[in-house]
Amino acid sequence: MSTHVPSAISLKEKGSRECSIHPLFAQRRSLRAFSSKPVEPGRLRLLLEAARWAPSSMNEQPWSFLIAAQENEADFDRLLACLLEFNIRWAQNAPVLLLAVARLTFASTGELNRHALYDAGQAMANLTFQANVCGLSVCQMAGFDMEKTRRTFSIPPSHGPGSHCCSRLPRPSRRTA
Amino acid sequence: MSTHVPSAISLKEKGSRECSIHPLFAQRRSLRAFSSKPVEPGRLRLLLEAARWAPSSMNEQPWSFLIAAQENEADFDRLLACLLEFNIRWAQNAPVLLLAVARLTFASTGELNRHALYDAGQAMANLTFQANVCGLSVCQMAGFDMEKTRRTFSIPPSHGPGSHCCSRLPRPSRRTA
Repeated sequence: MSTHVPSAISLKEKGSRECSIHPLFAQRRSLRAFSSKPVEPGRLRLLLEAARWAPSSMNEQPWSFLIAAQENEADFDRLLACLLEFNIRWAQNAPVLLLAVARLTFASTGELNRHALYDAGQAMANLTFQANVCGLSVCQMAGFDMEKTRRTFSIPPSHGPGSHCCSRLPRPSRRTA
Repeated sequence: MSTHVPSAISLKEKGSRECSIHPLFAQRRSLRAFSSKPVEPGRLRLLLEAARWAPSSMNEQPWSFLIAAQENEADFDRLLACLLEFNIRWAQNAPVLLLAVARLTFASTGELNRHALYDAGQAMANLTFQANVCGLSVCQMAGFDMEKTRRTFSIPPSHGPGSHCCSRLPRPSRRTA
């Protein structure tokens, strides 16, 4: 995928070792085509563990995740129904759906944490990167009904949904019969 | 650094290839001890390039970055002065300071982009990760004066500062005379 990286960005300065964009960034895509194979729980746990290692203001780790695999039909459908129609159309076939939620207030003081969503985004970036390491693909969706999401999962005003996403194996580029 | 990763998280399930937390996550630290050696501009450009590859709602890429190296004394001091006292104390010796800013409205419609800070956080996570790839260390700081930052850099209400951070080479663990 190195052809996608502008060559001007490669670093080869006098006295420094060469360095370039990490291929896992350059190869990340928000793919909507995927294998129907389920994702093993162990892999999912690894994605969450990677998210947990993100930095956060006051080390509040304000993120949490709601997850449903397609096998858990009721939970999966509740998450799916929060998406907007154009996302439901393709996400309904994803093996796993996931919703990131940020606690918007500091647990210690109850005051507004203006970095909560920013930090939750960093956790999601870690999760996405780790997914690539594990051979999975993550596609995030901002197209969801915020109020319906709040109602469905009883998310209080102190918390804010970040993004929905689904995680799955990319569909093999050469189809098998 | 694998000793920091709980062993329960390693994946070794029947029929799946082994997968574990990427060492660049497990090794990331918000270090405050660093080398005084300047960071080459090429490396900085790579960090920004990595940030640019982050996903974002409607592909808005709402992030921007203000950067000052210590050689550019006036710019460096303006960024430094926005930090709270306890951060100024150690960040004043950093070779590079950086401020992430998110555009809070959609460029296309002018409507509120509720994912702007979340997406800017993802860009910062990419930047941090790429810094590690390049042998640099990034430490983010939520401890800054929001209003002073807005005034100093004429940041309009449509934009919101995410976090200040400094980037530098970690101090070698064994000091040389």
